[in-house]
Amino acid sequence: MSGNTFGTLFRVTSYGESHGPAIGCVVDGVPPGISLNEGDIQVYLDKRRPGRTRFTSQRREPDVIKILSGVFENKTTGAPIGLMIENIDTRSKDYDAIKDKFRPGHADYTYFKKYGARDYRGGGRSSARETAMRVAAGAIARKILGERVILRGALVQMGPHKIDRNRWDWNAVGENPFFCPDPVSAVEWEEFLDDVRKRGSSTGAVIEIQASGVPAGLGAPTFDRLDADLAKALMSIPAVKGVEIGAGFDAAALSGEDNADEMRMREDGSVEFLSNNAGGTLGGISSGQDIVARFAVKPTSSIAIPRKTVHTHGGNADIVTTGRHDPCVGIRAVPVGEAMAACVLADHLLRDKAQCGG
Amino acid sequence: MSGNTFGTLFRVTSYGESHGPAIGCVVDGVPPGISLNEGDIQVYLDKRRPGRTRFTSQRREPDVIKILSGVFENKTTGAPIGLMIENIDTRSKDYDAIKDKFRPGHADYTYFKKYGARDYRGGGRSSARETAMRVAAGAIARKILGERVILRGALVQMGPHKIDRNRWDWNAVGENPFFCPDPVSAVEWEEFLDDVRKRGSSTGAVIEIQASGVPAGLGAPTFDRLDADLAKALMSIPAVKGVEIGAGFDAAALSGEDNADEMRMREDGSVEFLSNNAGGTLGGISSGQDIVARFAVKPTSSIAIPRKTVHTHGGNADIVTTGRHDPCVGIRAVPVGEAMAACVLADHLLRDKAQCGG
Amino acid sequence: MSGNTFGTLFRVTSYGESHGPAIGCVVDGVPPGISLNEGDIQVYLDKRRPGRTRFTSQRREPDVIKILSGVFENKTTGAPIGLMIENIDTRSKDYDAIKDKFRPGHADYTYFKKYGARDYRGGGRSSARETAMRVAAGAIARKILGERVILRGALVQMGPHKIDRNRWDWNAVGENPFFCPDPVSAVEWEEFLDDVRKRGSSTGAVIEIQASGVPAGLGAPTFDRLDADLAKALMSIPAVKGVEIGAGFDAAALSGEDNADEMRMREDGSVEFLSNNAGGTLGGISSGQDIVARFAVKPTSSIAIPRKTVHTHGGNADIVTTGRHDPCVGIRAVPVGEAMAACVLADHLLRDKAQCGG
Amino acid sequence: MSGNTFGTLFRVTSYGESHGPAIGCVVDGVPPGISLNEGDIQVYLDKRRPGRTRFTSQRREPDVIKILSGVFENKTTGAPIGLMIENIDTRSKDYDAIKDKFRPGHADYTYFKKYGARDYRGGGRSSARETAMRVAAGAIARKILGERVILRGALVQMGPHKIDRNRWDWNAVGENPFFCPDPVSAVEWEEFLDDVRKRGSSTGAVIEIQASGVPAGLGAPTFDRLDADLAKALMSIPAVKGVEIGAGFDAAALSGEDNADEMRMREDGSVEFLSNNAGGTLGGISSGQDIVARFAVKPTSSIAIPRKTVHTHGGNADIVTTGRHDPCVGIRAVPVGEAMAACVLADHLLRDKAQCGG
Repeated sequence: MSGNTFGTLFRVTSYGESHGPAIGCVVDGVPPGISLNEGDIQVYLDKRRPGRTRFTSQRREPDVIKILSGVFENKTTGAPIGLMIENIDTRSKDYDAIKDKFRPGHADYTYFKKYGARDYRGGGRSSARETAMRVAAGAIARKILGERVILRGALVQMGPHKIDRNRWDWNAVGENPFFCPDPVSAVEWEEFLDDVRKRGSSTGAVIEIQASGVPAGLGAPTFDRLDADLAKALMSIPAVKGVEIGAGFDAAALSGEDNADEMRMREDGSVEFLSNNAGGTLGGISSGQDIVARFAVKPTSSIAIPRKTVHTHGGNADIVTTGRHDPCVGIRAVPVGEAMAACVLADHLLRDKAQCGG
Repeated sequence: MSGNTFGTLFRVTSYGESHGPAIGCVVDGVPPGISLNEGDIQVYLDKRRPGRTRFTSQRREPDVIKILSGVFENKTTGAPIGLMIENIDTRSKDYDAIKDKFRPGHADYTYFKKYGARDYRGGGRSSARETAMRVAAGAIARKILGERVILRGALVQMGPHKIDRNRWDWNAVGENPFFCPDPVSAVEWEEFLDDVRKRGSSTGAVIEIQASGVPAGLGAPTFDRLDADLAKALMSIPAVKGVEIGAGFDAAALSGEDNADEMRMREDGSVEFLSNNAGGTLGGISSGQDIVARFAVKPTSSIAIPRKTVHTHGGNADIVTTGRHDPCVGIRAVPVGEAMAACVLADHLLRDKAQCGG
Repeated sequence: MSGNTFGTLFRVTSYGESHGPAIGCVVDGVPPGISLNEGDIQVYLDKRRPGRTRFTSQRREPDVIKILSGVFENKTTGAPIGLMIENIDTRSKDYDAIKDKFRPGHADYTYFKKYGARDYRGGGRSSARETAMRVAAGAIARKILGERVILRGALVQMGPHKIDRNRWDWNAVGENPFFCPDPVSAVEWEEFLDDVRKRGSSTGAVIEIQASGVPAGLGAPTFDRLDADLAKALMSIPAVKGVEIGAGFDAAALSGEDNADEMRMREDGSVEFLSNNAGGTLGGISSGQDIVARFAVKPTSSIAIPRKTVHTHGGNADIVTTGRHDPCVGIRAVPVGEAMAACVLADHLLRDKAQCGG
Repeated sequence: MSGNTFGTLFRVTSYGESHGPAIGCVVDGVPPGISLNEGDIQVYLDKRRPGRTRFTSQRREPDVIKILSGVFENKTTGAPIGLMIENIDTRSKDYDAIKDKFRPGHADYTYFKKYGARDYRGGGRSSARETAMRVAAGAIARKILGERVILRGALVQMGPHKIDRNRWDWNAVGENPFFCPDPVSAVEWEEFLDDVRKRGSSTGAVIEIQASGVPAGLGAPTFDRLDADLAKALMSIPAVKGVEIGAGFDAAALSGEDNADEMRMREDGSVEFLSNNAGGTLGGISSGQDIVARFAVKPTSSIAIPRKTVHTHGGNADIVTTGRHDPCVGIRAVPVGEAMAACVLADHLLRDKAQCGG
């Protein structure tokens, strides 16, 4: 397989380029009888949609989702769900200037080396536009997880600026253009990002995904651990350079006694953990604690500041990427990260049900 | 599938518990005609073997590999390669004290919740003993990659102590008990780890894997990106809490212009990158630059310092894990990380050959 | 996975119901640089299209294929190819009469039992309409196989009437409404099928697929033998009840000496087989001889002759299936069988290339 | 993958050659808590074992199964089950005479063409010896199906001699050396097969597998239909040339009204089918009726009657295959066919549980 399918039982197969007639995906393995309509999906796509504020790309992609199959009388039937978004705002002319150059940081060079040619319009298949389909599939995954699972993401670092976790407020996330859970940082980031944008530069970010209500027992050792599948899911998002679970890289610096999440029995006989360095997984299986994952997004590679590159047919050149780009793609990566985490959890929920009865 | 198979074309299927009669794996998809004997594998297993120094577990696991199939007259035949190591030094009695308690940080609790029972002897299937088979499979993967690919790993941080990258010397890696590329740090770590060990504590680590000579073009977007598959491979190693590629989490703090790996044309017409923040992959496809990945290993969960836990059948308890444990499992994770990276690269080499002709 | 993906490297993922807005599929794993346009696919869809003669359903499904992705400037790019056909001629009213009854021989009852509900319009997902996507994918598979492989099918039995193989003429296949290679049988079948049709009955058929020019070496033992994958591929076509390779069921009656395909060396050093009871595969691997497979199609289940059935909510009933149905679905199964065989061969061609270098 | 893994959730990965140190397999995805010991498996292996009567190979393969993992205190743990049989009676010398010739009907030629070399000892990986592992895995699959499913096989045709189905008696199957359900045919076959054997010839056979008690709802359209997966499973058994379900190839000759399995409602509200031409599947999903599948086995290719062949390094030759061969491999294919059917059913049981809740 050439890598456009994700998941074992909850399976997403994606297609489409940024400048073709449409992008789409097939979601297979969905249990029957789940209530689903286009609105259930559209709400998440709208979170990812560009052009909502001055801090994201000014492209106008209404991203109207169509359900082509698998739903009958507003319920899933168990048949594969075909989803499609027609591409509307494709200004291929924007790309004439760069069709003969490799944009540093983009997949231009590697696609050219691998496939011998490339669809240079907006990155073709390598465009982050494909992440719209991840978000759409994630909306269906959430339906499988049900309301017991609360899965949400937030930007916890923009450029060098980290939030103060003591000010974490989930309500704040919806009230600023950055999905930032720290209202103070959100204000500071406005100024920072305006400056980045005006300079034609870009900046990176770190996103945190949390899922509460995930039952203990999800994940399939040895290789398909819940954390391993989350790592793959999040690292597969364009521009992601790192993934960590729980204490993550900081765990390396801890002593065994500090890292241990000690356990106590509650009066009702249930088990309580006194900390969550594990990030909700032990041995690759969910423990019932919150799943906590973070991923790092590199700064947008399309910038207006000239960089050195080469021509596709030889010779050095400088390149400036104009067009309508996000100064911080990490912002729109928040709903994408949520969606990928939802897909992984839904897949493992079904897998656990098969082997262990759920 | 319940997660004991790794890879798409180069496929490893693993089995075995730490205290059963044997552990083993099946390696499928290996091209025919490759020279292979047990010695080719044993050399890597010996790097992972415990008890070589006072800084690793004092268990005596000779870990003698047997090839059961797939090789005829010292060449691979194209048939699946069955590998097996008989378990020798299994002191199940060591585990009597903990059979009714969940060890914090271990998979005891989650296996119990998922499977309804657990093989408490040495962690059963969740034991890191299974990583011997990853190392064995990795030795075969290296054969597929061939000599053009130089793949090696090193410990770059032990506990809070990072190496000085300016002192990086690959020759040093084989000359200290830590696979440390910085001879000065290696000396300092001896003292640090002796202290950790004597206190009955443990410490975490960060490992870096580098692969040079990897041809451009490996990796299969959208979901099976080379970096995504590396992330899964490394995160699936027991005790790993984070994975990053190239600049990794530091990329979040960079500006677009600083992060861009600029390109120049060499006199011979080949392309040169002026930096490697990408870690050798762009759009999930190898660029021909060195693949650089790091992963964080948490401190060993088995420690002699009492921790709070619960009984499997209810009630609080304290737990002390005696036995013969590694004070820093990160050390022995070095050959395991190398092996997993080799498996990913070999798999994508075959996948690329299928679709793009190699 | 719930079964809507076919193939390992050449992968087809299908979706769509007969009465939804569209059917479609994603074809992943296609090598880059292959010339492809809609016409290349349409020509095969036209062979499957109903309503071309009085011997097939009178539905008007123009089945116009759209390529949504994966092709740029008339060449495949290596990205997944999204294909779609909009549904036009859907007369859902035809199905009101049967929405509360299970049609014998159809999947109505089993879908209802499995999924708890069903899309009764034209069979929903179980409709043979999905086979249009198999044909479309098969057209791409043929491109991968290239011109050296000649893959074609023919109806060799209609109802109880078998062709005379001595009269086999591939040119005849395109000159009668039955894809019949025996011109004499073709004439006889007209009368037979007219009678079947007028009585509101239906009849079964046997189709033979032959592929010449298939290189030796395709197929992956132990489980994914070329013949095993062909068997799955053909048996997965709606209404198919049997598959055989080479001598097939007749092989059971042969002696070992009669069944053996003896071998001789030609003057040029190549190997010649003196017969082809094996049907082109030995040990599940192609031998270079013609691949020969046959499959049996049951009579169309939708007939105008009353049959006993039950109501979906209890109680007995009689059922008559009106609408526009094929008196012999086996006819239109010919291009479908060709397509499935092409998909299997293309998949194994890529697999062989990966492991054995093609 | 190179084809040595079978199944989606209940997964069998097999390895081993007839003349290596051992054959084995890994069975992954088994639910935890199922009672299992070696005896549960051995009983089925003993049915397949050669040398029990004069009508099968006189090789002495005690085929003692060892469970290496996945079982703790006689219960499955959910971990992968490693199984192994050490090879004992390997007379490699038997093969010296044929090491430089291709045996007609065997995989010698195709393995040589595909892999560039071959392990000529007993067929290497292509030896039917690997079917022992299918039988072992099938024994575990039966445990998952539970006692409600009665799955059994019988020889219904030997050479040209079919049984009289009116004399079908399941009790007879265990009372003759042929797994024949017709006591009269069993007697006649003794004489027939003695003659075949003495002439150094061989003969083919047809086996029928029946499974009763299979719940309605198993099978995953579109491609992974229950019948399609059964077809692949049975066709993947060495020497099988045809597979059919229910009425099979005879369905081609039926009219729609005769083929329809009419339905009636029983007094208790359950559904009764008045016939079973479908063989227990509709639209690829089990209907609750008996699953009925048949497969044709070609005559043993190893015969003492000289056949024409070629040398591996050029030139014509005659070949006689001496050694200890089955005159009718179809006999020992009965337990193998049962096992493969059990694996398919167990896999789909788990798949249905995941998607539809079982």
